Amino acid sequence: MNSIDLSLYLVTDNSDNVEKFLNTIEEAIKGGVTVVQIREKTADTLDFYNLALKVKEITAKYNVPLIINDRVDIALAIDADGVHVGQSDMPCDVTRKLIGQNKILGVSAATINEAKKAESDGADYIGTGAVFPTATKDDAPSVTKEELIQIVDSIDIPVVAIGGINLDNANQLTDTGIAGLSVVSAIMSSDNPKKSSEELLNIFNS
Amino acid sequence: MNSIDLSLYLVTDNSDNVEKFLNTIEEAIKGGVTVVQIREKTADTLDFYNLALKVKEITAKYNVPLIINDRVDIALAIDADGVHVGQSDMPCDVTRKLIGQNKILGVSAATINEAKKAESDGADYIGTGAVFPTATKDDAPSVTKEELIQIVDSIDIPVVAIGGINLDNANQLTDTGIAGLSVVSAIMSSDNPKKSSEELLNIFNS
Repeated sequence: MNSIDLSLYLVTDNSDNVEKFLNTIEEAIKGGVTVVQIREKTADTLDFYNLALKVKEITAKYNVPLIINDRVDIALAIDADGVHVGQSDMPCDVTRKLIGQNKILGVSAATINEAKKAESDGADYIGTGAVFPTATKDDAPSVTKEELIQIVDSIDIPVVAIGGINLDNANQLTDTGIAGLSVVSAIMSSDNPKKSSEELLNIFNS
Repeated sequence: MNSIDLSLYLVTDNSDNVEKFLNTIEEAIKGGVTVVQIREKTADTLDFYNLALKVKEITAKYNVPLIINDRVDIALAIDADGVHVGQSDMPCDVTRKLIGQNKILGVSAATINEAKKAESDGADYIGTGAVFPTATKDDAPSVTKEELIQIVDSIDIPVVAIGGINLDNANQLTDTGIAGLSVVSAIMSSDNPKKSSEELLNIFNS
């Protein structure tokens, strides 16, 4: 199993303004983000590839792992550190075969069954949510704190919570056994992504 | 260079009705289609993967090469015979590295420069069009018969023509030096895909 510091896990959103996008990621890393996932659901493959190369320059500079959402081809093409797949992406076991044993494999799982299957199919960690209401991914299933704890307890691999996590509610999750907080808007839409990252990391570590 | 019979090259469209979609492909192969490309621009990765597995059962049964449009990850996951990339997909040279030397690599090229670059970057064949007006891909550049001949003459790898080719106009392309006709609607939307394929192949071979 590949080990990774999941404490503060940034998932990106809209990259229309590439310069601002890259700057936000760099500031977030300076603020303590421990892993970056690029999530692009509408971009052409070439645009996604070029964007991922640019993000990799930043993550490599700070030695932070870079994960690609869904697209195993992009991950292989830019030699990312790993891939994150959802329940409507490439099956976990197939993904593991494509990326080999040395790349990180994350899987979105909203139930104990999904989490156990991902673990047995080769996942290194699980992303579970949405733990709070979120506008970023409006089709995400909702997961209660109770359910989150049950998922954490049902598997041996680490779990990150995702979905609507921000500075106001993050402290509600610190006693759940999760390995980290995964956020999108709380950092990507922040006026001060470095400070927001510092504060989120402080909440998680406290 | 990987050799492939490009004489009648079927590119698929909308697969909402999977049963009809698969049946059309099988009838088209019975009618003489020599290569099948799956093109899915909106499907979830899991749906694309599952669809590609089903198409592969058919193409394997008839020993017809199966090419995946754009998605190198899907091609690798189902062990397709090759990949076709456009100018806004993964770069040709990167794609070649990902798929290795033994899989077929096709590239869409609408100019001599694009065709020459694809050839030097590892393409096995070129797809050029749109040679006629087409509703399938309304953002495709238009390529005149003159330009098509110039592209064929500028490179050593084979060229298939694509875009709006049907039973009424296919004969206009037989003296251009192309290696095949690539069609979507003329077969996928045909009431009798087997007969349409037979007729298109007859036109090309005459």
